[in-house]
Amino acid sequence: MPSEPRFTFGLWTVGNPGRDPFGDPTRAPLDPADSVRKLAELGAWGVSLHDNDLVPWGSSADEEERIVSRFETALQETGLGVGMATTNLFGHPAFKDGAFTSNDRGVRRAAIGKAMRAIDLGGRLDAEVFVFWGGREGTEVGTAKDPRDALERYREAIDVLADYSVSQGFSMTFAIEPKPNEPRGDIFLPTVGHALHFISMLQRPEMCGVNPEVAHETMAGLSFHHGVGQALWAGKLFHIDLNAQRIGRYDQDFRFGAEDLKEAFHLVRLLERAGYDGPRHFDAHAYRTEDAEGVWEFARGCMATYRALAAAAERFDADPDVQEALAAASVAELGEPTVGGDDAETLKAEAAGLDALAQRGYGNERLDQLAVEVLLGVR
Amino acid sequence: MPSEPRFTFGLWTVGNPGRDPFGDPTRAPLDPADSVRKLAELGAWGVSLHDNDLVPWGSSADEEERIVSRFETALQETGLGVGMATTNLFGHPAFKDGAFTSNDRGVRRAAIGKAMRAIDLGGRLDAEVFVFWGGREGTEVGTAKDPRDALERYREAIDVLADYSVSQGFSMTFAIEPKPNEPRGDIFLPTVGHALHFISMLQRPEMCGVNPEVAHETMAGLSFHHGVGQALWAGKLFHIDLNAQRIGRYDQDFRFGAEDLKEAFHLVRLLERAGYDGPRHFDAHAYRTEDAEGVWEFARGCMATYRALAAAAERFDADPDVQEALAAASVAELGEPTVGGDDAETLKAEAAGLDALAQRGYGNERLDQLAVEVLLGVR
Amino acid sequence: MPSEPRFTFGLWTVGNPGRDPFGDPTRAPLDPADSVRKLAELGAWGVSLHDNDLVPWGSSADEEERIVSRFETALQETGLGVGMATTNLFGHPAFKDGAFTSNDRGVRRAAIGKAMRAIDLGGRLDAEVFVFWGGREGTEVGTAKDPRDALERYREAIDVLADYSVSQGFSMTFAIEPKPNEPRGDIFLPTVGHALHFISMLQRPEMCGVNPEVAHETMAGLSFHHGVGQALWAGKLFHIDLNAQRIGRYDQDFRFGAEDLKEAFHLVRLLERAGYDGPRHFDAHAYRTEDAEGVWEFARGCMATYRALAAAAERFDADPDVQEALAAASVAELGEPTVGGDDAETLKAEAAGLDALAQRGYGNERLDQLAVEVLLGVR
Amino acid sequence: MPSEPRFTFGLWTVGNPGRDPFGDPTRAPLDPADSVRKLAELGAWGVSLHDNDLVPWGSSADEEERIVSRFETALQETGLGVGMATTNLFGHPAFKDGAFTSNDRGVRRAAIGKAMRAIDLGGRLDAEVFVFWGGREGTEVGTAKDPRDALERYREAIDVLADYSVSQGFSMTFAIEPKPNEPRGDIFLPTVGHALHFISMLQRPEMCGVNPEVAHETMAGLSFHHGVGQALWAGKLFHIDLNAQRIGRYDQDFRFGAEDLKEAFHLVRLLERAGYDGPRHFDAHAYRTEDAEGVWEFARGCMATYRALAAAAERFDADPDVQEALAAASVAELGEPTVGGDDAETLKAEAAGLDALAQRGYGNERLDQLAVEVLLGVR
Repeated sequence: MPSEPRFTFGLWTVGNPGRDPFGDPTRAPLDPADSVRKLAELGAWGVSLHDNDLVPWGSSADEEERIVSRFETALQETGLGVGMATTNLFGHPAFKDGAFTSNDRGVRRAAIGKAMRAIDLGGRLDAEVFVFWGGREGTEVGTAKDPRDALERYREAIDVLADYSVSQGFSMTFAIEPKPNEPRGDIFLPTVGHALHFISMLQRPEMCGVNPEVAHETMAGLSFHHGVGQALWAGKLFHIDLNAQRIGRYDQDFRFGAEDLKEAFHLVRLLERAGYDGPRHFDAHAYRTEDAEGVWEFARGCMATYRALAAAAERFDADPDVQEALAAASVAELGEPTVGGDDAETLKAEAAGLDALAQRGYGNERLDQLAVEVLLGVR
Repeated sequence: MPSEPRFTFGLWTVGNPGRDPFGDPTRAPLDPADSVRKLAELGAWGVSLHDNDLVPWGSSADEEERIVSRFETALQETGLGVGMATTNLFGHPAFKDGAFTSNDRGVRRAAIGKAMRAIDLGGRLDAEVFVFWGGREGTEVGTAKDPRDALERYREAIDVLADYSVSQGFSMTFAIEPKPNEPRGDIFLPTVGHALHFISMLQRPEMCGVNPEVAHETMAGLSFHHGVGQALWAGKLFHIDLNAQRIGRYDQDFRFGAEDLKEAFHLVRLLERAGYDGPRHFDAHAYRTEDAEGVWEFARGCMATYRALAAAAERFDADPDVQEALAAASVAELGEPTVGGDDAETLKAEAAGLDALAQRGYGNERLDQLAVEVLLGVR
Repeated sequence: MPSEPRFTFGLWTVGNPGRDPFGDPTRAPLDPADSVRKLAELGAWGVSLHDNDLVPWGSSADEEERIVSRFETALQETGLGVGMATTNLFGHPAFKDGAFTSNDRGVRRAAIGKAMRAIDLGGRLDAEVFVFWGGREGTEVGTAKDPRDALERYREAIDVLADYSVSQGFSMTFAIEPKPNEPRGDIFLPTVGHALHFISMLQRPEMCGVNPEVAHETMAGLSFHHGVGQALWAGKLFHIDLNAQRIGRYDQDFRFGAEDLKEAFHLVRLLERAGYDGPRHFDAHAYRTEDAEGVWEFARGCMATYRALAAAAERFDADPDVQEALAAASVAELGEPTVGGDDAETLKAEAAGLDALAQRGYGNERLDQLAVEVLLGVR
Repeated sequence: MPSEPRFTFGLWTVGNPGRDPFGDPTRAPLDPADSVRKLAELGAWGVSLHDNDLVPWGSSADEEERIVSRFETALQETGLGVGMATTNLFGHPAFKDGAFTSNDRGVRRAAIGKAMRAIDLGGRLDAEVFVFWGGREGTEVGTAKDPRDALERYREAIDVLADYSVSQGFSMTFAIEPKPNEPRGDIFLPTVGHALHFISMLQRPEMCGVNPEVAHETMAGLSFHHGVGQALWAGKLFHIDLNAQRIGRYDQDFRFGAEDLKEAFHLVRLLERAGYDGPRHFDAHAYRTEDAEGVWEFARGCMATYRALAAAAERFDADPDVQEALAAASVAELGEPTVGGDDAETLKAEAAGLDALAQRGYGNERLDQLAVEVLLGVR
């Protein structure tokens, strides 16, 4: 880890009041400016926010100005940056059938208008990235939306908003955040793959990347670091949401590292080796069992575990036994081109060699056990 | 359903002997030519095959010629076509660490060579599509492959093979078949989305589409008809594998329609409405409890259920109550552009209308209940 | 189906306002008495309720008396019965760490006290069954509770409450409702099996059965009708919660039959054949997209689909082709004892006959396809 | 960890040849006597076996005697014990529809006879436990078996075999091994809970316990240590199968600790604290990528990780910060009875105190972060 990673937290993460579908809040709301100060004290680099995390829906222009100014002051005083801004297109009842893909054209237009205002806010706060999480863009009822129409409307909205952001002179990039389900039965752009493809269909594909979230890919049981790897391969990892989740469950948003430590290790090792330089953004919240102090323990834990895993990744790659095991598994050989000017007949002839090629082993048990032992701190 | 759909079956599907990880075969192997004749009798349009379904691995050139000729005769006698050809890059022990993404460069070259031979066979048999299912392209051990390297090798292989196929004058298109896991712990290109994106990175993207499989997307709990919808939206549905599967389980490959009838209904309705004209390909097999007769009941059932669902889709769309419910849900309105020359200020102003826009309902309970009642044949 | 099934709805089901973890309510609350009248009009037999569905937490004794009396009047006027009563031990923030298994003894005592009051209410309303859903009895953090201690406290609570109910002269039975997760990371008594075993450990096992819920078993990917079958086999199906759910997702509580029609068919067929005479209780809610009218469409749909599936089950069992297929699969033979006075040597000798016994098929493809065709109304 | 745990390996685990549903074996079979010697060298306490791991199906009585004698010699020479014996009722094609619950009475009788022979073998080898894994006891087709009939036949078989074992003077206990699916679509007794309840229905419940397997409960997404906790609470943990698995996938049987290190930690801590004194049995196999040497690395890894986790559990419980966090979470208080001679009115009155009881936090973020840091070896 060449330099200290830039850790950011969403205002909604430390500010989460512990409400869930079956129970009322267990914690009082936090003032965004207080969150900024506390996060600075804990060593975070910055924050991220939805428009309505900062400015409650329905605020007047004057209220908005006052709130934003006060927030800017807190940022200046603490030196914290804004890693990412986004817009809440899921909380208001009007978005119950979708925002950019609502069947109601009026809702779609209102959603685009609301996103424009949020882009203005993001631009004002010097956010690096503007994220789109289409949590309501989906269905419970398969006949209620033709998926081709929905994707066409989704594309239209992002194209319009990219034009808008550029027209305002903002330098923010866009990042699409995929999720398979919850709160909708099935959400469009359910995985990193679907989002990467969608981006390739945009009018300004170069301006748009993905914002993968540990919990979202994990809900579908997909390998998170493979998904991040595909984004990095395509130069499209523009932001990342770190948390923890068990496969096949409700959206848990646990503290980073609280589940599946080995996958978290693979992720951190990949990010550090790839030189990803965006924020390490925690999109998680404290368990509902916690009081105010537990929230800050949660925040400390996210950062501490990231650092511990980055250190473990360094230790892993420096270990001579690991280097031997990586060689035995021919890991570096995968980086070499397979074919170089060979003609087809040569390659066809080599197919006859499969029986001989089957003899070797790849030493993956030893390699993985070394990773486990590095992780457990016993080597 | 304007015309009779073209049903195809893989030779390996009706020929499946009922072996599984815990038990020995329960049925005798079938002769491919016999399968062709029986499928013709049942009303199938054609067959599909892996190279080694027809020509066992290790056959001499003479044996291969004899086998293929005999198969061509059966095709000619019955009038059956070859919907799809593919290559088996997963059965031989040499592919235990991958084929196009094996860490061993020799294996990667042999895999490309074997695929070239299979392309020759596909070309000879006038296959419409050549499919790539990378069942071994993955890992159990996260440190054993850098996913960026693996995707780069995968791309190299498909680029080389596309050049080869074109150089031979074949008109076959290529189709990538995604799968999330099994037989590897995590497979690269795990979903339709990842495959669609991968295709956008190829040298000949126009030549390559996807081959989604019901079971594969369903294993990850994704909506199959949404994935197919994204492929259709992009003009990339080049082939399709029909079967049935429960979410979160081993690869079941059940008879089409044996699980989740409503999702199967949504799929068939989408295919028929979109005018998809490729083969309706069954990649499934009879339960291991079945004898030879049970295999043909399985094949009959796949086709009968597709036809019944296509008829239900027609009945659904013709039903006046359904038309009323579709209108109440504003389904057609999703096909209308959201923005047309409006300036940003207009759209921002419309955001203020959310409270009013929240009042309406979308009638999705009624719409879905109508689908259930059409499906159950009670309307 | 010998007689009309008794359909019941929870007050919280039709009264669900459409709030979810990401969005605010989309519908106004309903008055319980109005729900009773509307359900009577739609043909329901009765209702069920949590204490706080009827009497808001914090009501004075006078308010409670007034509310309950008014509700009794509505029941009397409509003739509706109370199928089940239960207590809300999950909504109040005090239950954030559990109710009967909270680490805080004070919370445990308050939970038992609250349950006693709810038992009083259930007794007053002549509820047939009193249900315990321990939604907060679980953990996110494995070291926070020894599961043996938690189960011991759970048992203590049910034993105390069973004594209490008997001491008050109530004839209600108890039913435990299992769930694997949500709102806790892992909930104790996660499946029908765990609950059935727990009941066998109680001081009054005869008084307690299970209340299986479609969504809860399905979240874990288990066969719902197998779980219900085990409960029926043990004489322990005391109540049932009907709804719909996709595997491996957040708790969806969709309209009965909205997902997995074949499994719903197996369930209804089993209940009807077994002569289950308790309420067919719908624990579900309308999609968040719906307005007030959509809620009643939802309620109508639950009942209509149950009736349609019961009719399909009758049609299935009366179909001569089905009867032939059931015979071919030797379904009735499973009801015959395997061993009758045979000595061990006889049985050991029969093991030698396996090769011959392997020859037959079981005709399961045909049998299942017949079920699909009956379901689809094409036979 | 007071004394060295007794590690055992199934003959089928180290002997696994790397076959899977899509590929041929990648390793040569092992001779059971050689496995015994190698496992002794690596420090295992003993082995376990299916009848046909040792004596191939179809062996003559003479062959069997020769094979078993040679195996006994290897055990005597190495001092290894037999932790568990079982019978293979899943590999032979005759069991395709089930063994104890096959619809064919002849198959059921043959299965019981084969199990009796395996009990004889287990008794001869002084196995401590005889395990029943009913891998074929299930269905793909819901109408093919009434689950009540299936459970009745299952019970009959276990009752008959328990009588037989007692009649032969064997001291082996029985243990039921649950699994939710694979190789059948749905297996009866899918979880630890269902098996524990089933045992309560047997004629000799005291003789029978459970054999939970990490992979099997995890396939269904259940907390493994909660399931083991319920078995320990009931005095029914008679054996345990250790391996690793990702949720919602094919049966992976990975090296112990290869997935979900925190859950593995919770498990080991529970076993050690509960004083479980049965074998720590590894039912896992090396990745298919491995050659012979990789198999022994796999075996070493299983034991090394168990030891490392047991050491981490000791370190955790001895850490003063952990002790403080356990106290803050009131963990020990869950061990105290909730009610002691209080009358109902007292408890009802305490329900009024919920608002005050909601104020405290439970410090679970800190507690879990401490567990993570102990696991990662950074404290």
